[in-house]
Amino acid sequence: MNLELRNLKGTRDYLPAEQQLRNWIKNTLEAVFARYGCRPLETPILCHYDLLASKYAGGEEILKEIYRLRDQGDRELALRYDLTVPFARVIGMYPNLRLPFKRYEIGRVFRDGPVKTGRLREFIQCDVDIAGVRSTIAEAELMAMALDAFAALGLEVYISYNNRKLLSGVLLSLGVGEDQLNRTILSLDKVEKIGSAGVVEELQASGLQPAVIQSIFSVFQEGRQRAYYEERFQHPLVREGAAELKELEGYLGVLQAGDGVRFDPLLARGLEIYTGTVFEVFLKDGRIKSSIAGGGRYDHIIGAFLQSEAEYPAVGISFGLDVIFTALSMDEGKVEAKAADIFLIPLGTGAACLEIAYRLRRQGFRVEMELGERRLKRSLDYANKEGIPFVLILGANELAKGEIKLRRMASGKETDVPLDTLAETLQELI
Amino acid sequence: MNLELRNLKGTRDYLPAEQQLRNWIKNTLEAVFARYGCRPLETPILCHYDLLASKYAGGEEILKEIYRLRDQGDRELALRYDLTVPFARVIGMYPNLRLPFKRYEIGRVFRDGPVKTGRLREFIQCDVDIAGVRSTIAEAELMAMALDAFAALGLEVYISYNNRKLLSGVLLSLGVGEDQLNRTILSLDKVEKIGSAGVVEELQASGLQPAVIQSIFSVFQEGRQRAYYEERFQHPLVREGAAELKELEGYLGVLQAGDGVRFDPLLARGLEIYTGTVFEVFLKDGRIKSSIAGGGRYDHIIGAFLQSEAEYPAVGISFGLDVIFTALSMDEGKVEAKAADIFLIPLGTGAACLEIAYRLRRQGFRVEMELGERRLKRSLDYANKEGIPFVLILGANELAKGEIKLRRMASGKETDVPLDTLAETLQELI
Repeated sequence: MNLELRNLKGTRDYLPAEQQLRNWIKNTLEAVFARYGCRPLETPILCHYDLLASKYAGGEEILKEIYRLRDQGDRELALRYDLTVPFARVIGMYPNLRLPFKRYEIGRVFRDGPVKTGRLREFIQCDVDIAGVRSTIAEAELMAMALDAFAALGLEVYISYNNRKLLSGVLLSLGVGEDQLNRTILSLDKVEKIGSAGVVEELQASGLQPAVIQSIFSVFQEGRQRAYYEERFQHPLVREGAAELKELEGYLGVLQAGDGVRFDPLLARGLEIYTGTVFEVFLKDGRIKSSIAGGGRYDHIIGAFLQSEAEYPAVGISFGLDVIFTALSMDEGKVEAKAADIFLIPLGTGAACLEIAYRLRRQGFRVEMELGERRLKRSLDYANKEGIPFVLILGANELAKGEIKLRRMASGKETDVPLDTLAETLQELI
Repeated sequence: MNLELRNLKGTRDYLPAEQQLRNWIKNTLEAVFARYGCRPLETPILCHYDLLASKYAGGEEILKEIYRLRDQGDRELALRYDLTVPFARVIGMYPNLRLPFKRYEIGRVFRDGPVKTGRLREFIQCDVDIAGVRSTIAEAELMAMALDAFAALGLEVYISYNNRKLLSGVLLSLGVGEDQLNRTILSLDKVEKIGSAGVVEELQASGLQPAVIQSIFSVFQEGRQRAYYEERFQHPLVREGAAELKELEGYLGVLQAGDGVRFDPLLARGLEIYTGTVFEVFLKDGRIKSSIAGGGRYDHIIGAFLQSEAEYPAVGISFGLDVIFTALSMDEGKVEAKAADIFLIPLGTGAACLEIAYRLRRQGFRVEMELGERRLKRSLDYANKEGIPFVLILGANELAKGEIKLRRMASGKETDVPLDTLAETLQELI
């Protein structure tokens, strides 16, 4: 039998050049999270099935996509499908944990769903959540952090924000029934994806009257400011949502983000869990249409999951590592992913080269050494292909003279450098 | 029904203070790896079962501990149990991959084994491997890297090394049968764990003659240098192993590691996969008895796994993240794991504080802001408990004067600092 080397559909390898960029994204985000007092949490992938399938965990849709398994003790296990259930569990499990609790977790999650649209079955989520804060200052913190994070990543973005109470109140006022509300919101949320005509079709199919549909479209087309809705709608949800938006906008004002934050009265962010603020981050140049991060307030989920009388107001943001990776991959050369700064080639001088490499590395240089028994030309080809800017070549002659050949790959220029001053010379170049 | 909040036995959460230290270890190692031209690889956790269970993958022992599952398409899947099989698979799957291939992977692996001895069922492996190099310069590179890595972690270590060919050749010369060789090596490897008497018992049970056992003990007690074995044994494996050791020691000499590298003729490193050099890293102060990293040469595994005629010489090192974590946790305060440098407390001045925090964070300060509605005393208690050294308190009065109260937690001393020069003041303090 021949072994077929393959990955499971919906999973993939990240080879070094890609993974270097992914690590850079992750490290950049973590450095920003730390500046915001967000602390790391790590939770297991392997979980008891009953916890993940609990009524208040991920909902019906997700249940179908849970990977289930049994261990040797015949326990029913499952692989986690998000980082929110573990977050809620941790809050419930450790009574000494102080609220507000602000944590981030970057980790793999698993969903046995369709892969046709390029969806992965094993992917990384990167979530920051704050539990225990009722004020929209928590949302403002996370939005400020998102602006900082994308600045650090070198991506120009804006944040669209809205309030689910406002959106719901307006729709109810316009004649949408309570039972039609969620479906209506989910349809409206798809306008970018399926166009107005598609949305109209869906709304009709879900039983909305043509007059109601028309008024929805005309209201949201007209009202581009919060004040528009405050003036026209008396529904308590609209008033509550508008008050929350006003508070949030007060906080956002001090960030002086200009058009970096934009009110979008139709933004819903799909998931039913949101109870107040919702927001999504988009690239300003629009080269990727979908959002690259998003989040919002979900005040009921944690308490419901914990089957607790206590309330656990919470706000979260999720960074789309894969889409950020795609966006940065489009800017070739913007982020360096080279193997090393220096490639060191021994010509029968392995031990001396090992010593030189050891010394340079201790001084912080990133040095790759030729360990194979390739010809010089092939070693140089490799350094060239990998974009390593400086190559050091050590033959027995140079070594006898206490020198080493330094080749600048960009110009092809070669000079002999005394070994004593090699570090200083490289310092100036790199 | 009440939901029981719990983790599966053999899995655990890492709360922020712990996870901060774990991340620091990981980032420190990755920075050293990068200086050695090691590049990151990321492979899936979810795999086809047949690949992981292949005859040449992990061996019989591991098969019992594989977590198996089926997906919706009724495919037979499994969770990876190490990072070596994925490494071998990647080498076989990507024909453009250039050898030598030097990669690291830090990732979770899963084993459904006994947890009594504190073993985890889900844990992190951190492996660096080089495929495609026959010379022991590859071992020397990894051992140099290990010395650098532990220096960067602030741990004083030494590396024990040996050669499996030498060990095997000596044992065969002393009368151990070919079929008894592996069991004998595995028993000898346990001398630290079960003592000499325990080893003798095991060797007797495996059918070795008392005279043979005695000569094994006296030879290894006497021979503390490579030369001892070279002079006394003519077995071809001894000569081959000694030649490899001599080459390796030539390379190690240039590192000037002194007693940082030590020959140990009994070191075997359990696993049967090793074909030449083996080495293990220990703490010099002995406060942890077991090794904290280890590796060796395994020239046959990759080719056998790939069912290939080609040879894939390979050397690897595995860092024990959990035991390194334990070692560093013993040095309290050695590694900082505080929540932030600055704790900012608004007294009815949320928006102004958000702006101040935003500004300080953009300048690189790690600022946590009080988002809850706690009393001042409780906020200060928290900052104190978390070891945050500086607290900023902003009341309406201070704000009106363009000032903010700065409290040094160590002394309790409070001063009013102009907001204009706040960053400079903090810069000097932190």
